[in-house]
Parts: sequence; C-alpha cells; structure tokens
Amino acid sequence: MSVHVRVVGTGLIGTSLGIALCRAGFRVTLSDPSPTAARLARDLGAGEIADASTDDPDLVVVAAPPDVAADVVVESLGRWPEAVVTDVASVKGSVAHAVRDGGGDLARYVGSHPMAGRERSGAGAARGDLFDGRAWVVVPTGTSRPDAVGLVRQAATAVGAAVSVMGAAEHDAAVAVVSHVPQVAASLVAGRLRDVSDPAVALAGQGLRDVTRIAGSDPRLWTQILAGNAAAVRDVLTALRADLDEVIGALDQLADGDSRGALEVVNRTVGHGNVGVARIPGKHGAAPTAYETVVVVVPDTPGALGRLFTEMGEAGVNLEDLHLEHGLGQPFGLAEVAVVPGAVEKLLAALEARGWRVHD
Amino acid sequence: MSVHVRVVGTGLIGTSLGIALCRAGFRVTLSDPSPTAARLARDLGAGEIADASTDDPDLVVVAAPPDVAADVVVESLGRWPEAVVTDVASVKGSVAHAVRDGGGDLARYVGSHPMAGRERSGAGAARGDLFDGRAWVVVPTGTSRPDAVGLVRQAATAVGAAVSVMGAAEHDAAVAVVSHVPQVAASLVAGRLRDVSDPAVALAGQGLRDVTRIAGSDPRLWTQILAGNAAAVRDVLTALRADLDEVIGALDQLADGDSRGALEVVNRTVGHGNVGVARIPGKHGAAPTAYETVVVVVPDTPGALGRLFTEMGEAGVNLEDLHLEHGLGQPFGLAEVAVVPGAVEKLLAALEARGWRVHD
Repeated sequence: MSVHVRVVGTGLIGTSLGIALCRAGFRVTLSDPSPTAARLARDLGAGEIADASTDDPDLVVVAAPPDVAADVVVESLGRWPEAVVTDVASVKGSVAHAVRDGGGDLARYVGSHPMAGRERSGAGAARGDLFDGRAWVVVPTGTSRPDAVGLVRQAATAVGAAVSVMGAAEHDAAVAVVSHVPQVAASLVAGRLRDVSDPAVALAGQGLRDVTRIAGSDPRLWTQILAGNAAAVRDVLTALRADLDEVIGALDQLADGDSRGALEVVNRTVGHGNVGVARIPGKHGAAPTAYETVVVVVPDTPGALGRLFTEMGEAGVNLEDLHLEHGLGQPFGLAEVAVVPGAVEKLLAALEARGWRVHD
Repeated sequence: MSVHVRVVGTGLIGTSLGIALCRAGFRVTLSDPSPTAARLARDLGAGEIADASTDDPDLVVVAAPPDVAADVVVESLGRWPEAVVTDVASVKGSVAHAVRDGGGDLARYVGSHPMAGRERSGAGAARGDLFDGRAWVVVPTGTSRPDAVGLVRQAATAVGAAVSVMGAAEHDAAVAVVSHVPQVAASLVAGRLRDVSDPAVALAGQGLRDVTRIAGSDPRLWTQILAGNAAAVRDVLTALRADLDEVIGALDQLADGDSRGALEVVNRTVGHGNVGVARIPGKHGAAPTAYETVVVVVPDTPGALGRLFTEMGEAGVNLEDLHLEHGLGQPFGLAEVAVVPGAVEKLLAALEARGWRVHD
C-alpha cells in the first residue's frame, strides 16, 4: 500500500513536492489556507484536495512560510497522532524549539531542508523536478524516532534529492555561512550601487554581476530566513566584520602613505579567499576539479551557441561548466567553456578547424 | 604613415594590445625587462623588438605592473620628449600624482584603464581580441593636451574597446564601488569557508558559487590594486561597514527575541540590494532588460547542450543569457535560459515539441 503524504501549503515547494511524490507512486493529499491555491496545485498534478475521507496521512509535510511553520507543525502533530511530521523551512533550530515549546511530540517530528527554490514563487512556478539532484538535509531532533527519520528520508530520496542528515545547530551554522551570509554580503555590495553615477555603474563587469546576482532576491522571504537564523548569521557576520575592520585599517594606513604591515593584511585577506573558494565542491557534489577554460568568441545571432555546442559534441568533448560574458556595445559575446584538462587540445583543434575564434 | 606605438611591458595586457594594434595597422615595437618575454610577445604577433633604430614612438603604452607604472611613465616621458604616454593601471589617481611628483610632463600624459583581463597572466595568455567590446576608460590629467587624449582614444577604439572619458577621482571612486569592493566582499565571504566542516561546505549552492567566484583572484595583483586605490576603497568599505553594523545589531536583537525595528532593518537591507542590482547595465551596455527565464533539464552527455541551442536557433529564439546549474550527485544539470519576454511561448512550444523537459 502506498504511503499517504499530506502536503500542508501548496506554494512553490509544496506543489512541486506533491507533483514529484505523485510521480514516485506516493498518495498525496493537499491543503492550503487558500482553496484557490490548493485547486491550482491539484490541477498541476500535485495530488487530491484533502477532505474528511483522507484524514489518515502517514507523513505530513508542512510547506508553509517559515514564520508560521512551527505553529503548523504543532497543530499537525496534535491533529494526526499517528503521523510523522516534517517541515521544509530553511532554518531548523528555531522551528524545533518552537515545536517543543508548543508541546509538540518531538518523537514524531523531523525537520527537513530541501535546498531547492526558484526566483518565482507560488504553485504556478512549481516543477516536478525541483528536487532532482538538490541537497535535502534531514534534521532529526534529539528524540526523533528512527522510523520517523526513515520515512522522511524515503520521501526525499523518492523525489530525487541527495539526502544528508545533520543536527539542527550544525545545519543552521552551515547554512549561515554557505547561504545566509553570502546573501547579506551580496545585498550590501549591491546596496552601495544605489547612489553611484550612471557613468560609474556603466563600468560594471562580470565580477560585479556575479557577486550581486542573488541581491535580486525577495526581501520578504529573506527577512523571515535571516530572522529565523539570527544568532548563527550574526556570529558569522561578526567574524566577517572583524576581517573587514582589519582591511579598512590597512587601507587607512595605505591612504596615509604608511604601508608597514598593511600590504600583508590585504594580501592575506585575498589569499584566505583563495583557500576558502577552493573548498566549494564542484559539479555533481564531487571534489572541486581544476577544469581548463577555453574562450570562444560567439557572434550574437540565433543558433550560434547551438552550433558551438553541437560541434563540441561532435568532437566528443563534454562541457563541464560555462560562463557567458557579454561585450560592452559589441554584437558578440565570449563563452568561457570549462572542460577536463585532457580535452583542451582536442577541443581547440576541432573548433579552429570549424572556423571558431578560440583561445586557451 | 602609420602610428608608431611602443609597448613597454609584454605581459598579458601589453602583448594582447600589441597583437590587436598590429592587426589594426599600427606599427608596434616591444620592450620588457625580460628579453624572453619580449621575444615571446614578438613571436605571438605583438610587434617587433625595440632597438636603437625604432626609438621614435608617437605613443608609449606602459603596461607594467601597477606598483611600478608611475616610475616607468616618468622615465618614458623623459626619454621620448615628443611622445604621448599612457599606462594601463586599473587605478588612476595615484599614478597621476606620482607622475607629477616625479616631474613628468603632464601635458603629454593621459591615463588609461582598459577593463579587460583574464584569470591567467603573462604573454602566453594574450589574445588579440582581449579588448573587443570591453570598456576602456581614458583619464586625462587637468593639463593633458587634447591631441594627446585623441591619440590614446584612437588606439583604444582601434582595438575594439568602448571608450569613455573620466577624471581620475571619478574613475577611482567608480572602480572602488563596481570592482574593488566586490572583490574584497567576495574574498571575505570565501575566507569564512576556511574553517567550515566538509558536510557544511557540501551544502554550497549556486548563490555561494556566484558570490565567491572572483575570490579565486591573484592576491599579489589585488594587493597592488587595492593599495593603489586605498582611500576610495576604504570610503566605500566604511559605508558598507555601517550598513553591516546595522544588520548585525538587528540580528543581535532578533536572537534575543526582540523584533522591534529589527525586521525593518533586515528587510530594508535586502530591498536596497534589489534597487542597487537593478542599476547594473545588461548585455551590450544597454539598460537592464527584464528577460524571462526558461529552465531546461539538460542530460550530462556530450552534445546535449549543443542540441538544445541548435533547436533554440531553429526556433528563431536568441539566447540573451545563460546560467548552468549542476545538480548534486545527478547526471544532468539545469540550464536557465534568458530570452526576451515575447519569445517565451514560442520557445516553450518548440522545445516541448522536441522532447525537452522545460519549465517557465
């Protein structure tokens, strides 16, 4: 008999999960404070609308906004005394504390953090493959039952996610440093552009675009996330501020013409960045690989990139990563194509033979 | 008669410029403290090795490392009393001051900042199209002669760069905010990853990768750049620190369970980032355009991306931007394809008809 999952909250995450679980053979029922949202999710193939005849879920997934997740978890634990309950909020410690404070049965509660999202929100943006290949952190409380943890793992694995298990404190400290602090940094750097002149902002290059891409994120959602992980984010930002103070002090000295010790501080700061960035895992969760980059000049016409990648495929070379850089005021761009080191010579020869302007 | 350009310093920038100027019909002679480097540049088509018979340059381009640029400019102004002299250092105020302090003839000196570079350095990495479509800021001193400014503009335009003219202070303040501060921020965020556990860093997503990509930059070069623009970078970082202090204060309050005013601070910080990032010009130096994004599931096999872009081309849809996202532990990736809003429906229909899994 198939597992019955109740999805509470049919936004982007809940609806996507419903679609994916249905495809994986789970029985899914849906509820949402907005009947319209629930019906839209049903029409998208996320499951059936919950009613009195379907009040027997094995697993309840609370996919409500982060600031109400804990309340809905407590309510769900009380309403379905046999069910395992999980939530999908991106911060876990504060939810677990609130569930305990609310008198929820922690043995049946297991936190989840599926690390998937889109720039758009709502059921209309849902995709059945949203969790395909994404990390999904399962976060048991100290007293979660093993079978409860197992059921959450089963659902996460069924939708294609790469599951890992962590304690709440460990999880929250990790996302503070790999996700929340980068968001704050991107927002602060982008915020400095508000008062800059047009000619100045016209000098923006790819570096600025990369650093600030996530600064376009939704303030309402991020206020909830940062508030939910306030202590862990504060700790990392405080350490970062100490590093920043040191840099500002060194630049102050240099601006006064005094370089003693100051160059070492600046050099060390950039060097520490080198060390840190080298730790970020590469494609497929593998250890970072030193790919080689080949730069190809691509005319800005329909199909030009297609021809490039088709011809790379014909040469038997797989693209590991790609970065497009658009020239300022020019009708073409540069494609920085990352391939495994052994493939560089073959690729250069193949592309040059086909008339591409290419550089290693 | 063609313009004679002496390139002093045959690293990445000098050699690339030599190649590009030769192709554009300029006469180029080369010198470098390292005879080997100069010969390599010659062999790459960057010009002829300078000797006693070629001691009559019209324009001298000092492409030396930033920390010696001013000295070489002063020396060049003295050695060739008829020539216009420019340099390519990415900070302009400190060079101009040092040239004046060194007694150089400021009427014949014009600063340049070609905004082009690569992750690799040296003549071996040179490309004749390095300046194609890149910004090139021409920075006259208060007393630069108009014909001197014109000659530098002529060379920059000839190599395909998009030329703009700014004063040194305006230029240095601009690059502080659009280039140097983002570098420091990326280095600081990446630096925080040094002491993080492996399971934590395994949760890294595309956001962290984007924010920290430039943290892999060369510490030696960046120490020179940041030291050369110390006052302007310090000013922006000091303003950024004030914003950061406010965020840390708000998170401190929130961690203590006191949300009065704190949520507004966090929300405003992310909102200001939204405003700032929207000011960054888009492709081709045009005003930022709101492209629509279509997400396509791409199997990780040679030629798959090629087939995708070929079929986009067949559908007559031009790719405006592209972001590849690699799933964790899965044999495929997601291509986030940006197109003009009017093309979305056509593209979705065309790709679905060809069997792609696609989502708008």
